[in-house]
Amino acid sequence: MKKIKILVVGHGNVALGAIARMPMFPDLEIVGIVTRRVEEVKKFCYRWPIYDLADEAAWSKCPADVVLLCGGSATDLPVQGPLFAKYFNTVDSFDTHGHIGPYKDPDTGENMPGYFKMMDDAAEEGCNTAIISVGWDPGLFSLNRALIAACMPEAKPYAFYGLTEKGGLSMGHSDAIRRIEGVKDALSFTHANHGAITSVCGGGNPVIPVTSRHWRECLVVLDDEVDSAAIEKAIQEMPEYFLGYETNVTFVTQEELNQHRSMTHDGMVLGVGDLGAIEFRNEWTSNPMATASIMLAYARAAYRKADYGETGAFTVLSIQPGDLLPEGTDLLALV
Amino acid sequence: MKKIKILVVGHGNVALGAIARMPMFPDLEIVGIVTRRVEEVKKFCYRWPIYDLADEAAWSKCPADVVLLCGGSATDLPVQGPLFAKYFNTVDSFDTHGHIGPYKDPDTGENMPGYFKMMDDAAEEGCNTAIISVGWDPGLFSLNRALIAACMPEAKPYAFYGLTEKGGLSMGHSDAIRRIEGVKDALSFTHANHGAITSVCGGGNPVIPVTSRHWRECLVVLDDEVDSAAIEKAIQEMPEYFLGYETNVTFVTQEELNQHRSMTHDGMVLGVGDLGAIEFRNEWTSNPMATASIMLAYARAAYRKADYGETGAFTVLSIQPGDLLPEGTDLLALV
Repeated sequence: MKKIKILVVGHGNVALGAIARMPMFPDLEIVGIVTRRVEEVKKFCYRWPIYDLADEAAWSKCPADVVLLCGGSATDLPVQGPLFAKYFNTVDSFDTHGHIGPYKDPDTGENMPGYFKMMDDAAEEGCNTAIISVGWDPGLFSLNRALIAACMPEAKPYAFYGLTEKGGLSMGHSDAIRRIEGVKDALSFTHANHGAITSVCGGGNPVIPVTSRHWRECLVVLDDEVDSAAIEKAIQEMPEYFLGYETNVTFVTQEELNQHRSMTHDGMVLGVGDLGAIEFRNEWTSNPMATASIMLAYARAAYRKADYGETGAFTVLSIQPGDLLPEGTDLLALV
Repeated sequence: MKKIKILVVGHGNVALGAIARMPMFPDLEIVGIVTRRVEEVKKFCYRWPIYDLADEAAWSKCPADVVLLCGGSATDLPVQGPLFAKYFNTVDSFDTHGHIGPYKDPDTGENMPGYFKMMDDAAEEGCNTAIISVGWDPGLFSLNRALIAACMPEAKPYAFYGLTEKGGLSMGHSDAIRRIEGVKDALSFTHANHGAITSVCGGGNPVIPVTSRHWRECLVVLDDEVDSAAIEKAIQEMPEYFLGYETNVTFVTQEELNQHRSMTHDGMVLGVGDLGAIEFRNEWTSNPMATASIMLAYARAAYRKADYGETGAFTVLSIQPGDLLPEGTDLLALV
């Protein structure tokens, strides 16, 4: 069987997750890694050619069928996505929900086309297929929001994260705390407000403010001789991240904090209507590995969609579920 | 907006469910009903033309875009499916899992093509699109089995039904009890074995015999002067239906039984692997109405797939989730 050739862009947690999950995808094979830090990656990676991200002339000639864009949504993907989609079929996990479609830039007031349009233009230019915003949310959760909207339109789909006792580690919120002067290290966990879930289960699509759907738990290591009360206040009043949320701050030692490092995460999409309830729940032992694993399944779909001659950008809502499975799978047996 | 014209075949619970759910689907409209009992249906239904199932010359000229085949899998669909697929795009809820693909007839030993092939041939002959086996299982559950198989192939997907205290009413099992001489009426409820679910949650894809995944609760009304112990034994030893299962039989009065009549049902698909767990759970206030509602969403997809020129038979695994939504839906907002 001819394997689908994957070029991995990045060497962060999602890229490493893709490498780790490859044995589960015997119909795919990695044919190269693109990174900004070639020498560093070459130290631990001997199996595949390592390309310098800056060397477009080199990586653009890699004999890849699909590129797995493993960079982040804030700065990597808006640049790397369109750049790679000109040369290759791509799969990425762009997850800034509000910037997928057209939006207005809050600073300049400018109308922005959004990531989908940027990728659609680039992929069309290269006659390639780009599947964007793949992972569990957006991704599998988007698919379930669509199922609820289609089959039970009277129900509004709600999403909750961190339903387990542990909650789910939020990288963005952890980083935000670390940027406060006097903070040495920090972890921020998102917890679902189970009262809000009970309220949704009662039906009637209750109005629940975003800040009441979750609460936040912060474990913080301070620099020496810092005023802990001031730090706690600074965290709890940080707009967009913590302001308005119930936020518990606990000060711990670095050793205690290290025991809480974990990539686990979980969440669910829930819709409740007259017809009943549809619930889609995920629990992941490793959040980036889950994202990578779902991206690898959608790499199959990108390869096939390109093969069907369907070029441009697509989201998971335009992918046939059967195209996520290895060639030769008995689809009727799964029905 | 041009509405998608739906011809409903049947006037049982699923057909009535489709009629009841139509207000939730403003982009669809019913243009007729096909039934064996025209006079009976005409008594309560004035809104649409009623066609006699036997009058092929009449119903085949109905200006429908999609036919909703609401008959049962045992005897209705194997005849009606191919008959209607020659004239129309169709959606059905064929749910005999083992007869969707090719199978060997246990009585004659003959190799049978299965329902998919029959529908594929008929739809191709008529240049139509047939979406088969639509509902919650098969249907939405099939889609989630595919997601688990694609993204977390180390996990085996399990299905459980009747997780709530009430359990789920099984029509087939209720009918089987009613056929026993001395039984006046009966209801059989399927209950998930929660120990089996816990075992699946523990990981490792445990081997759990089919008979240990569920237990059965039977409420039975006897004819006068019947030996209840003999009836209980007859039920518990009925092969395929109850033999091997934990089966609780309770004898009740007709009045007591009537209080338990309910169309509620629920179930879930669950896969647990190294990567974590994917769980898709449904709870329905009315089982046939849920099936009908899901079929109506897939009627949109049948209409569009026909419009794309994709003829033949398809399962839910070949349908883009976005095609289940009304025309003009902002799909990027759902991602």
